[in-house]
Amino acid sequence: MGKSILLEHGSGGRLSHNLIKEIFIKYFDNPVLKQQTDSALLKINSNLIAFTTDSYVVDPLFFPGGNIGKLAVCGTLNDLAVSGATPKYLSVSFIMEEGFSFEELEMVVSSIADEAKKAGVLVVTGDTKVVNKGKCDRLFINTAGIGILEVRYKHISTGEKIIPGDKIIINGTIGDHGMAIMSARNFASFKTDIKTDCASLHTLIRDVLDTNCPVKFMRDATRGGIATILCELTDNMNIGIEVDESKVPVKEHVRGMCELLGFDPFYVANEGKVLFITSADDADRVVDVMKQNEFGRDSAVIGEVVDDHIGKTILKTGIGGKRIMEMLSGEQLPRIC
Amino acid sequence: MGKSILLEHGSGGRLSHNLIKEIFIKYFDNPVLKQQTDSALLKINSNLIAFTTDSYVVDPLFFPGGNIGKLAVCGTLNDLAVSGATPKYLSVSFIMEEGFSFEELEMVVSSIADEAKKAGVLVVTGDTKVVNKGKCDRLFINTAGIGILEVRYKHISTGEKIIPGDKIIINGTIGDHGMAIMSARNFASFKTDIKTDCASLHTLIRDVLDTNCPVKFMRDATRGGIATILCELTDNMNIGIEVDESKVPVKEHVRGMCELLGFDPFYVANEGKVLFITSADDADRVVDVMKQNEFGRDSAVIGEVVDDHIGKTILKTGIGGKRIMEMLSGEQLPRIC
Repeated sequence: MGKSILLEHGSGGRLSHNLIKEIFIKYFDNPVLKQQTDSALLKINSNLIAFTTDSYVVDPLFFPGGNIGKLAVCGTLNDLAVSGATPKYLSVSFIMEEGFSFEELEMVVSSIADEAKKAGVLVVTGDTKVVNKGKCDRLFINTAGIGILEVRYKHISTGEKIIPGDKIIINGTIGDHGMAIMSARNFASFKTDIKTDCASLHTLIRDVLDTNCPVKFMRDATRGGIATILCELTDNMNIGIEVDESKVPVKEHVRGMCELLGFDPFYVANEGKVLFITSADDADRVVDVMKQNEFGRDSAVIGEVVDDHIGKTILKTGIGGKRIMEMLSGEQLPRIC
Repeated sequence: MGKSILLEHGSGGRLSHNLIKEIFIKYFDNPVLKQQTDSALLKINSNLIAFTTDSYVVDPLFFPGGNIGKLAVCGTLNDLAVSGATPKYLSVSFIMEEGFSFEELEMVVSSIADEAKKAGVLVVTGDTKVVNKGKCDRLFINTAGIGILEVRYKHISTGEKIIPGDKIIINGTIGDHGMAIMSARNFASFKTDIKTDCASLHTLIRDVLDTNCPVKFMRDATRGGIATILCELTDNMNIGIEVDESKVPVKEHVRGMCELLGFDPFYVANEGKVLFITSADDADRVVDVMKQNEFGRDSAVIGEVVDDHIGKTILKTGIGGKRIMEMLSGEQLPRIC
């Protein structure tokens, strides 16, 4: 029997990367795709635009702090924003199961509209498909987004300006989204304080870009958590990374739930967290500015780029030890987004 | 119990239109979306671009003459091309069921790559999600597309230049795609000549535009067939339409299968058919040019715009009678695309 698709192929971790390399990059061979940035950067005559897409299959559709509609807007807008682009236009495509309720559809659509309005983007095109009962799980959504990119931010996607000594900054606590989904799925009857961090981060990102402190790299930490981004960076660039575990903000309840269920918060999905890399000189100023934004209150410098242990991300643990962060292998939580 | 989604909401017919009006247009209220054109026309600085999306849930994934991958490229490219745009970039997003075979995925991906290459478009960004076994039907694909539009073709999407006397042209036989899917689903063991007409029509469309005969409107006739497009036109514009049934090309086997199964070929989905509207003076020249293209061999003038029976499409039947074409109500064939 031939190979078949496993849940891990959708995890954002090692198997997802292999699938992208072995099948997608192989067949769709072109220089834009090969960059493997969050958004494709396209030159249309004299203009640079960013273009990205994501499908959302989160289960359940509604969870503390959000729903699939809000997620489908924030996720795609964030992919544009971390490229340095200003999000402008969205497409929204629905695949619905026969029998899905109008009432829930309307709740989802109204969330999409609200979130798009807040972000100043227009939903300009869309599509609806309906499949027979039992042929999909209630509702899947795809969004694609277009943003406008200024030439001076073109280097951000590739991270080409990162050098040893640069600082790694995060805009707040990790693991909230993953544990919110986990609790909605399994402990819906327990009342917890855990909520998704799902948010459109373009205003926070704009605030940081406006400091004129050069941002060398940004990426939103979704599937696979912040560990996956850091491992991708050390994998792809000629650098090492050191993260100080004690500096990484984690909410008490999230940490507790992770411990209880055996998850490592560094690998748990976020939907409102972005990592920035700036020079050491700029880091404190950037953190100060981030703290003024509602989505950056708990911002912190959590680590740095080093010229030691090239190709590896090392976590300095609380008790003075060190461990190597590997890219996620296996699936932590299917259908997290 | 509240209202729920029916298969008919995905048919492209009356219920799809109601859903778009009652939910999507209501919440995503903006002038671009309201146009309800095949592609959204966006102004980015000095450039006009066309932007569109479609999800593909066709069942089965492989059928005579094509597969879901080819369909996902052609369908989205055609939506761009009928807006008068030159297709340039595609996103491709996969939702896969756990256990889906790598071999079939590779066949689909290779079709996407082939079709994109032939059309001169780049697949520049994508996404992969995997859901647990039983939570989707093998594979769904979403593509979004970006094309570049010249200002002089801006009126084509809206059809604002259509006047009575204009001719309606089609590039060949109708109903092929729907009946190919139907036969793959139900009569896979019978050998028929029926194949999908799935094709990227941008070269044909380019040939027509290059004649410099002004094209007043174009639309690809997919879900809901050519009847749906004609009804949309008479619904939305202040015109009547008359179609001469005897002029509309239908392959003998397709007609036979339609008769056998009780389908009306005017409502059956196509994936390689486009309707053009030109002035009466230009129609013959346009048809001559279309016939030179591999996807236009059977092109024909099939009807005209009239100032009679405004708001209605009338079919002149072979025996001298007339019948009104209504927008598709009910679902003819679920998961046709």
